[in-house]
Amino acid sequence: MRKQTNAFQIELPSWGFANTGTRFGKFLQPAAASTTEEKFSDAGEVHRLTGVCPTIALHVLWDLPEGATGVANIKALAEKFRVRPGSINPNVFQDQLYKYGSVGSPVPVARTAAMAHLLESADLAALHERLAPDQRMLVEYKPFEPAFYHTDIADWGMALLLAKKAGPKAKVLVDTGHHYQGQNIEQIVAWLLGDDMLGGFHFNDRRYADDDLTLGSIDPYQIFRIFHEIFYFAWETGKRADVAYMIDQSHNLKGKIEAMIQTVTTAQELYAKAAIVDHEKLAACQAKCALVDAEVCLKEAFSTDVRPAIREWARSHGLPEDPLDAFRKSGYLERITEVRCKRNAASVSSYA
Amino acid sequence: MRKQTNAFQIELPSWGFANTGTRFGKFLQPAAASTTEEKFSDAGEVHRLTGVCPTIALHVLWDLPEGATGVANIKALAEKFRVRPGSINPNVFQDQLYKYGSVGSPVPVARTAAMAHLLESADLAALHERLAPDQRMLVEYKPFEPAFYHTDIADWGMALLLAKKAGPKAKVLVDTGHHYQGQNIEQIVAWLLGDDMLGGFHFNDRRYADDDLTLGSIDPYQIFRIFHEIFYFAWETGKRADVAYMIDQSHNLKGKIEAMIQTVTTAQELYAKAAIVDHEKLAACQAKCALVDAEVCLKEAFSTDVRPAIREWARSHGLPEDPLDAFRKSGYLERITEVRCKRNAASVSSYA
Amino acid sequence: MRKQTNAFQIELPSWGFANTGTRFGKFLQPAAASTTEEKFSDAGEVHRLTGVCPTIALHVLWDLPEGATGVANIKALAEKFRVRPGSINPNVFQDQLYKYGSVGSPVPVARTAAMAHLLESADLAALHERLAPDQRMLVEYKPFEPAFYHTDIADWGMALLLAKKAGPKAKVLVDTGHHYQGQNIEQIVAWLLGDDMLGGFHFNDRRYADDDLTLGSIDPYQIFRIFHEIFYFAWETGKRADVAYMIDQSHNLKGKIEAMIQTVTTAQELYAKAAIVDHEKLAACQAKCALVDAEVCLKEAFSTDVRPAIREWARSHGLPEDPLDAFRKSGYLERITEVRCKRNAASVSSYA
Amino acid sequence: MRKQTNAFQIELPSWGFANTGTRFGKFLQPAAASTTEEKFSDAGEVHRLTGVCPTIALHVLWDLPEGATGVANIKALAEKFRVRPGSINPNVFQDQLYKYGSVGSPVPVARTAAMAHLLESADLAALHERLAPDQRMLVEYKPFEPAFYHTDIADWGMALLLAKKAGPKAKVLVDTGHHYQGQNIEQIVAWLLGDDMLGGFHFNDRRYADDDLTLGSIDPYQIFRIFHEIFYFAWETGKRADVAYMIDQSHNLKGKIEAMIQTVTTAQELYAKAAIVDHEKLAACQAKCALVDAEVCLKEAFSTDVRPAIREWARSHGLPEDPLDAFRKSGYLERITEVRCKRNAASVSSYA
Repeated sequence: MRKQTNAFQIELPSWGFANTGTRFGKFLQPAAASTTEEKFSDAGEVHRLTGVCPTIALHVLWDLPEGATGVANIKALAEKFRVRPGSINPNVFQDQLYKYGSVGSPVPVARTAAMAHLLESADLAALHERLAPDQRMLVEYKPFEPAFYHTDIADWGMALLLAKKAGPKAKVLVDTGHHYQGQNIEQIVAWLLGDDMLGGFHFNDRRYADDDLTLGSIDPYQIFRIFHEIFYFAWETGKRADVAYMIDQSHNLKGKIEAMIQTVTTAQELYAKAAIVDHEKLAACQAKCALVDAEVCLKEAFSTDVRPAIREWARSHGLPEDPLDAFRKSGYLERITEVRCKRNAASVSSYA
Repeated sequence: MRKQTNAFQIELPSWGFANTGTRFGKFLQPAAASTTEEKFSDAGEVHRLTGVCPTIALHVLWDLPEGATGVANIKALAEKFRVRPGSINPNVFQDQLYKYGSVGSPVPVARTAAMAHLLESADLAALHERLAPDQRMLVEYKPFEPAFYHTDIADWGMALLLAKKAGPKAKVLVDTGHHYQGQNIEQIVAWLLGDDMLGGFHFNDRRYADDDLTLGSIDPYQIFRIFHEIFYFAWETGKRADVAYMIDQSHNLKGKIEAMIQTVTTAQELYAKAAIVDHEKLAACQAKCALVDAEVCLKEAFSTDVRPAIREWARSHGLPEDPLDAFRKSGYLERITEVRCKRNAASVSSYA
Repeated sequence: MRKQTNAFQIELPSWGFANTGTRFGKFLQPAAASTTEEKFSDAGEVHRLTGVCPTIALHVLWDLPEGATGVANIKALAEKFRVRPGSINPNVFQDQLYKYGSVGSPVPVARTAAMAHLLESADLAALHERLAPDQRMLVEYKPFEPAFYHTDIADWGMALLLAKKAGPKAKVLVDTGHHYQGQNIEQIVAWLLGDDMLGGFHFNDRRYADDDLTLGSIDPYQIFRIFHEIFYFAWETGKRADVAYMIDQSHNLKGKIEAMIQTVTTAQELYAKAAIVDHEKLAACQAKCALVDAEVCLKEAFSTDVRPAIREWARSHGLPEDPLDAFRKSGYLERITEVRCKRNAASVSSYA
Repeated sequence: MRKQTNAFQIELPSWGFANTGTRFGKFLQPAAASTTEEKFSDAGEVHRLTGVCPTIALHVLWDLPEGATGVANIKALAEKFRVRPGSINPNVFQDQLYKYGSVGSPVPVARTAAMAHLLESADLAALHERLAPDQRMLVEYKPFEPAFYHTDIADWGMALLLAKKAGPKAKVLVDTGHHYQGQNIEQIVAWLLGDDMLGGFHFNDRRYADDDLTLGSIDPYQIFRIFHEIFYFAWETGKRADVAYMIDQSHNLKGKIEAMIQTVTTAQELYAKAAIVDHEKLAACQAKCALVDAEVCLKEAFSTDVRPAIREWARSHGLPEDPLDAFRKSGYLERITEVRCKRNAASVSSYA
């Protein structure tokens, strides 16, 4: 488990530290980040306490509004706050131009703008060549977004066909909140792994829609089974699944940094539980259709309290054993609240 | 059918004429209403063309921000634009105070504020006494709102218990978009009718969540079956179901007034189809478990093209036969666009 | 519309005429077919009255239990009852051997048996060569079957990958009842058409699960939209979609033959409505994002009462105008009831 | 936790030991029980090993086909196998008469028969008076059963209205598999507790439909939250929730007795985890809207490995620490397999 705990890293979303909202408005937090520097600062704090979040996902529109000229600034922030930029997320949904869609819009100028923005996003990431050898393009899918008739890429099948058309660097991105009710996400993960098309995850949890709630707050066993498929694939094939783990949550009610720490901790625990499944035993049970034993084997790992081992791992890496407690004692929240609160109070908007 | 078409009226939502949006922002329309006067004007236009929308639902926070002092203004607008104020909708979800709920919030000051606002809303409606004899209180339910862990009143059972606790003037409000996937809304309507607890509808359609799409744009047959239950109840019991029909839609992509006219027209058609179901025949089929014939009986009505009859009804009432076409020829949209467009362009907001 | 009505044909399922049931037992019908001859006879009766069901789908296990030696018998029945055998359905789910799956079972002997049965099914169809040039293999998917942990081919994406692996004659079969709640079936149909991978349909309707209810009894507008995608594809590309329409229903409560006639009639109506959509107009609306007009265009066709035109078509083909009425007057049901009722009464089984 | 583990008991279903099936047939197990004596024997074995299953739920039709005259036999079996009869389940769904419903059927003779059977079921339980003071009537609900248009009692709201109409001894029965996707079962449980209308549970798990899979095999955290609501209610109100815990599972693929032992063990673990939630701390977190801490509080209990404590409890009660292992070593399965296997092999039935 220690080896796997060492290997586990998960990317933080810059937008998870900002005030975001529902269609009826935003519930504002006095400590929310509103500049790219503040987002780097908050992400750096989470990484400092957990040790497993070395990168931050950026949204071009929100974090790099000035385009390529902002790259130097990003580099400086990365150095200052000790978190590197990770995935680059284009935004082709917020501008008024994208009212009827982006690359699939019937409006030619919207399609052109979307393509230009996507290429610029690739540039921002690659700087010198678009999609460098070590880069990948991730195609995400989503069955619905409230208030719209449909989404263009509704499920993993559609994302897969598009990614295959796009070329060998394109893979599918699985957002755990982007599925139909009852859909077996771990089965989809297994198919994508088998087809060498799983690129990464956007982690969160949900009760019904794309709720972006804390990972594992609703159904932790499902996340465990997803991690299990990845470990099992590696065990079965001898190949390492090259999968990017990212958080895609943006909390309205929980403190943003606290929620992020809680998420990282939960991900670590569920990953560690999945790491201790006895694959030989499980495979033997499956081969002889011993269902009860196969389930006992999975549950044995899930029931194990891995928290002592993770605390020990943290200690040995000079990290706080209880990152949430350490954060609260650090005074960071109080400091940023004082700095940011006035500005945040000003930005209320109304629904109608 | 003519008698029933005469009887059918449906209330327009003031917020349906304003720029509203998704959590990622609003797609702005140059002709969107932003003052209460503009909302009355737009509603008046829809009523002028369709003849069946004499009332407009108001949202206290958005339409009566100044409280009781605004009532005289509302009266003047009603007279000027020939639509009366209808249902009064309190808003206990938008203010920062309601972050953790309203009447069910653990925060005492939020509960107090919510109660005060609800009472004020009743006052606004009644002016002299709270909930006058001819008024009713409608308790709405909703299984989820994206981004939240749960809703306090998740289904019709919870709304029913609350309404019964509240007293005889309280009834349940059925929003057609507030149900679980696969839930049989017409069965719920029948139970509420049988228990004398159905107060009204918020009409819209949806594919998955509370999408607030045009009524009947996804599943028109379901709306037909809902209307049918209401006619059937009246036929079976001899009682008139005292039900308020209201639209709760707010279009992002369709032109707001056009979408409202389309909705009213669709509602009229589906209502007229339900009106011509042969109840005697259907009851006889049901009594002898003649399923095929019972379904043929329903489908016979649904398959009938009622549009000629509705056009005839419109003609005989001095209304345009094709309200959408009449609207386009009226020049109203061009006029309001010119007046409102500059102001609307200014109000963009960002998600993160 | 006449041309398209002429072109429309739909296949009947042999098992739709037999007593079938729920997990709690079968509700028996005295007129249910229990031999292959009776199934051909009933299918022949439906074709005689509707004129659009020239083929009958066979289930190898139930209709050809003796294998290849039964082919001569099938040919004789086809001649006698004037319906040809259509699709050949292997059965790898009923035998005790398939307890843990069939071609995906961990049990080697189950996998071998399943493969042998599938090849034999192909032989039965082709007689001399396995999958003749004009034959196709259809891969069906299904998200769940109650009481099982998962299904191997859960969605169209998995079916697509398998079909592509299998070879150029393999296509995807869309059963309208095999989807997640809220899933956009017409969008899947459009993707499969665009990828030249749509092989056919199993038509039925459902409220929640794989209910196998009468096509269009729950959501007729959805079936209309599915047919529309097929017409639209042909109009857009100039290619004919080579799609097999099949019914997969097995009624417990409705009379089996009556339900089949009702289904065929409904399918014809919805197909005819889809045929009269004005594609030029719709495409123009879509190109300029005129959502209201695009919807009006679709609804215009759906609201049209096509029944008179279908009656006229039937008259001109020497078919009864009202097949259900003609069936009832034919005395067929009384005749088969007398012959079959005693045998059917004997076959009750208990759940536990 | 020890006190609560002592208090926890769960009822076994007689039908869970018999061969049951899907609509396509039964997968037979050589050791399945087919007489009432065998069902008592198997239930007795589970109780002997787990110590928490003193009662067995009976299905009148399957276990008491001869009616009241069979009661003496049941008493003898109860004594012999040391498990008492528990809940009495009428069966008004299997007989051909109930094709169109039972107490809600349009067929008078079906309604009469259903009422008579229900009263007889009450008699069987009470012997001398119908519903004795210490008896209760439980009204179960279910949103759908595949292949049917609707169910009469679709949700907890309908069950509640019926139970309230029936009288003070009637309560609602919550089957964890009888809900819409995404429905918040623990919230329903809380409402029923608050209204003093929660009578008991039918425990099982499911992925999509009423799958009757092993409790906690899909979503153990949900079951934990349900137990938590019950403990929390007791803590908040000082009242004991008088709730009957029953298993309603019938396994096709897992060994029936093994699956039952696994279920009981899982229920015990999740109950024990719920028992150690710190209610004072949680209530304090909730009162100040400290969401992260409230969740940590719940997760703290859920993450705790309670298996050592349960093993200790078993030891102290003279029960095997690992009931599944003890069962396998007992030779019971081999003995009953030898006795029952021939009879079980004979009972195959076909779908069509």
